[in-house]
Amino acid sequence: MQTITTLDITDARKLIEGARNHADKIGVPMCIAVTDNAGNLIAFERMEGGKVTSTTIAIDKAYTAAAARKATHEYGEASQPGKPAYGINSAIGGRLMVVAGGLPVTADGMVVGAIGISSGTPTQDLEVARAALAHFSA
Amino acid sequence: MQTITTLDITDARKLIEGARNHADKIGVPMCIAVTDNAGNLIAFERMEGGKVTSTTIAIDKAYTAAAARKATHEYGEASQPGKPAYGINSAIGGRLMVVAGGLPVTADGMVVGAIGISSGTPTQDLEVARAALAHFSA
Amino acid sequence: MQTITTLDITDARKLIEGARNHADKIGVPMCIAVTDNAGNLIAFERMEGGKVTSTTIAIDKAYTAAAARKATHEYGEASQPGKPAYGINSAIGGRLMVVAGGLPVTADGMVVGAIGISSGTPTQDLEVARAALAHFSA
Amino acid sequence: MQTITTLDITDARKLIEGARNHADKIGVPMCIAVTDNAGNLIAFERMEGGKVTSTTIAIDKAYTAAAARKATHEYGEASQPGKPAYGINSAIGGRLMVVAGGLPVTADGMVVGAIGISSGTPTQDLEVARAALAHFSA
Repeated sequence: MQTITTLDITDARKLIEGARNHADKIGVPMCIAVTDNAGNLIAFERMEGGKVTSTTIAIDKAYTAAAARKATHEYGEASQPGKPAYGINSAIGGRLMVVAGGLPVTADGMVVGAIGISSGTPTQDLEVARAALAHFSA
Repeated sequence: MQTITTLDITDARKLIEGARNHADKIGVPMCIAVTDNAGNLIAFERMEGGKVTSTTIAIDKAYTAAAARKATHEYGEASQPGKPAYGINSAIGGRLMVVAGGLPVTADGMVVGAIGISSGTPTQDLEVARAALAHFSA
Repeated sequence: MQTITTLDITDARKLIEGARNHADKIGVPMCIAVTDNAGNLIAFERMEGGKVTSTTIAIDKAYTAAAARKATHEYGEASQPGKPAYGINSAIGGRLMVVAGGLPVTADGMVVGAIGISSGTPTQDLEVARAALAHFSA
Repeated sequence: MQTITTLDITDARKLIEGARNHADKIGVPMCIAVTDNAGNLIAFERMEGGKVTSTTIAIDKAYTAAAARKATHEYGEASQPGKPAYGINSAIGGRLMVVAGGLPVTADGMVVGAIGISSGTPTQDLEVARAALAHFSA
């Protein structure tokens, strides 16, 4: 047996709140997804004006960041043409996201879940994900 | 051109609140999904103890109820062996849900979205969906 | 945060060993899958003569039993025509298995994973799954 | 008619053992999959700390290496922009893996199966796959 620590719904709501606050601040309505440590969805919100396509993208960014324990933009760098992970973006039926906006959430050095943001530019998505983590830690 | 009325994120949160309250009352943690009038997800919460399999099932119940403008249990009756909609449950890659727990949300006689509940028995799921609608209208 | 207990690879191997022993005893080579508490695969073996189709079926039986915290044959009963969960078998892209052979593994009353067996008759599959649990507890 | 030679479950276990030994040596827990000559899964293990996303990726690396009779990193080279196999990574619903870590297993010059490794860097994945083949031949 092994024991695992994972985000709960209260944590998920706080992360979403932090994302929404920053999304409001920069004026870009977002899709916001939070998963547990295994990559399974805990909570999701599509803000007024968030993109319908970004629903799945936000969920899959969070899935990737949690279940692969890696920020999605790191996969973006590693999967450029000529780089070692080139082509990984279509793995797992296309769920493996390599676009910025998915960040693992850690506690005591362990990945306990993740947040995925989508609807803005990848830079905006990542900025909002980081703001959510900062709000969560505060 | 046409104008469409649909639930927003504030409505979705109120529906989820109503579902959660009743789920707590009967002691059955649920997956709760709310979609807009087109069947696209607005918000989702998996309560502590909600089933991982029920994530997709709750989302697809809400999708079915909104996009087909019909309660999922009505499809359950219409899709019994020998009935006209027999076999419809595997349509749309299995997203067409015929198990109770998905209800359209209406305003002025128009479907403006839906709620989908999963993790309990179908009877419990439907009961929680109805409680969410009652809380929303109150 | 919440803390979760789940099977590890040593547990998975012991469950597979128990399944294989019983499968050998009744002379029916099986596909054997073990998942963690979230339904994610830990280990899998297809015995000589196990069916290729049963690979996915065994994995999905274990996924269902873990992530829905219910034996797959219970879904079989509940999803008969006229019963409340009729039609559930095509949910989650067809991954929700309602055929006997998927059993949750529990510890201290909590579901910590599951085993899924396929290649024999459903009765044989369930018998082998039960033998695996007995071997694991012994 | 034709006669086919393929790995059996004993071979698969020996390959997994070789992979695990090397993964332990370099301190990178892995997902390890072995398929038969047709690309169908024989055995799989996710080591403690192996990534959930790597479950499917390891299985699909082995599938690709066996069924296409080619190391996945060779597809990586051949599928770079401007190269003849550009875009092949999204084929077969994304199952065609072009990232290093999938190697065919040969006997008497024929492909009899494959091993797929995932969770480390592609370089580590390939190194572990090679160590598994060396252990198997020894």
